[in-house]
Amino acid sequence: MLISYEELKTKLENILRRLEFSEQKAELCSKIFADNSRDGVHSHGVNRFPVFIEYAKQGIINIHGEPKMIEREGVIEHWEGNLGPGIYNATLAMKRAIKLGKENNIGCVTLRNTNHWMRGGTYGWQAAEEGCIGICATNTIANMPAWGSKEPRLGNNPLIIAIPRKKGHIVLDMAMSQFSYGKLQEYELAGKDLPVPGGYDEFDVLTNVPGKIRQSQRTLPIGYWKGSGLSLMIDLLVAGLSGGKTVAEITNSGKEFGLSQIFICIDAKNVSKSIIENIILFTKGKDISVRYPGEQVLASRTKSLKEGITINDKIWEEVERL
Amino acid sequence: MLISYEELKTKLENILRRLEFSEQKAELCSKIFADNSRDGVHSHGVNRFPVFIEYAKQGIINIHGEPKMIEREGVIEHWEGNLGPGIYNATLAMKRAIKLGKENNIGCVTLRNTNHWMRGGTYGWQAAEEGCIGICATNTIANMPAWGSKEPRLGNNPLIIAIPRKKGHIVLDMAMSQFSYGKLQEYELAGKDLPVPGGYDEFDVLTNVPGKIRQSQRTLPIGYWKGSGLSLMIDLLVAGLSGGKTVAEITNSGKEFGLSQIFICIDAKNVSKSIIENIILFTKGKDISVRYPGEQVLASRTKSLKEGITINDKIWEEVERL
Repeated sequence: MLISYEELKTKLENILRRLEFSEQKAELCSKIFADNSRDGVHSHGVNRFPVFIEYAKQGIINIHGEPKMIEREGVIEHWEGNLGPGIYNATLAMKRAIKLGKENNIGCVTLRNTNHWMRGGTYGWQAAEEGCIGICATNTIANMPAWGSKEPRLGNNPLIIAIPRKKGHIVLDMAMSQFSYGKLQEYELAGKDLPVPGGYDEFDVLTNVPGKIRQSQRTLPIGYWKGSGLSLMIDLLVAGLSGGKTVAEITNSGKEFGLSQIFICIDAKNVSKSIIENIILFTKGKDISVRYPGEQVLASRTKSLKEGITINDKIWEEVERL
Repeated sequence: MLISYEELKTKLENILRRLEFSEQKAELCSKIFADNSRDGVHSHGVNRFPVFIEYAKQGIINIHGEPKMIEREGVIEHWEGNLGPGIYNATLAMKRAIKLGKENNIGCVTLRNTNHWMRGGTYGWQAAEEGCIGICATNTIANMPAWGSKEPRLGNNPLIIAIPRKKGHIVLDMAMSQFSYGKLQEYELAGKDLPVPGGYDEFDVLTNVPGKIRQSQRTLPIGYWKGSGLSLMIDLLVAGLSGGKTVAEITNSGKEFGLSQIFICIDAKNVSKSIIENIILFTKGKDISVRYPGEQVLASRTKSLKEGITINDKIWEEVERL
């Protein structure tokens, strides 16, 4: 079905207000869920909203939790997330990193005991909108085996890098597995196979069938040993610097909550616009199928705002019942 | 053949001194070439030395070039490499980033008009030895097609992340192609196929044969579109922030020189050692085949120092003729 951005946002906001989310939190969270669906990132838009509500009802997400600065070291601030909504905490953390970045050219906020931030790209776009380079990362529950193992002991630990650009920000938003679980669900809901192998089935064979991977929990790291290594480094960085929970601790708790994140912001005011433009032009060459990270997002956004946002019927029924 | 670390280093140092490298530069460059071979990174150790000498003789590397600070913005310093030896420039840049990192908790040095730094991991180990988290990246000549294209228009732009650790630093050193050209050469010299497909042959078919990929110049980005995107972001970051040459400009010049790099250092003095240890323990689990990045390097180092460094006979003949 198709739904307008405004209708979608209002619908989600009302549900959140009924659950006693504060006005500010309900406004921000509903906006970001609606933005994510509008931008074509369905896996972390409305598709994920019912789980978000379930976590809030169970108290895994503390709807009254407010992030608090604990300590400052040079251009780094360490924040405690108090298990508040991940979207809300992450937005405030990146806002603070932007401020520190504008003051010192680089700013960094670490955030511990927070919750799932949905689409990591959100905070990259946020920094880019303020004329800053944004780099952020999070850990997750273990959902990917390390290279050389069959047991999921790594998170897919998304990494986001955003560069501001007048003609459309360049925003890379990537999980360390070839496909995030959200993406696997998206393919499964659409009844489609993956375009390249995304993990192993129960017989140790690489497969393109999303359902088989969701069952085996054996997603494939990007670049085999390389993505496995990068995922490990991200957990070391986010948990090590924030002093928060590791993938191990999150996994042992049995539920994905209390995550560790980092937000780095670099002021881009002196970055040459022509250098950025030349890189994009050269990389694309004459191949119209070459796209820069974030290009598809802008195309989806334009289409959604014109024609309405496509929402999966089953998901919408679930939302209607909330 | 096997050669001792001291003999190797002295041999290389003498060659550099004959070429009028300063005492300081000859000492540092020969040390790092020998270190790289000692650590098992043959592709960027002695295997690469003849090319390095050739570039110095041709004046592509300015053996008298000295890096110079151009501008400071907050905790970022911008350096001009004056086309000096890449190893020398990068070591000085990371040294400065470490100093800035210790003063402000994060420090950053950008470096433009520099040359190939050989093994990027060198500068990660350098930061880790000083108790710091080191992050660095470089661009390269275009040697990898962007996802959706057949023409090489991206560099494989290595990214390094290092975390200090008493029992052995954790150092990720990865190019954005599944195999670097150095690694492809290493497999070819050993007469071995790649363990997983590393690129396309001239008939558009994924192949494990290193020679076919070196010929087609169509290496595979890690994780297909993901590594392609990450490579692009690294070029944007290093060229954008340093104001130096882009992959496009390096490629158009026809030779790999005048590169752009970035060195970021975060003081790790307050990072909990037990968090780092717990992450490593959990990730490894009981699978002895799971290794953290850098683990193999330490094993190679120990073996080389005990038994001597393995050098390819053909390469050694080339070195003997220099």
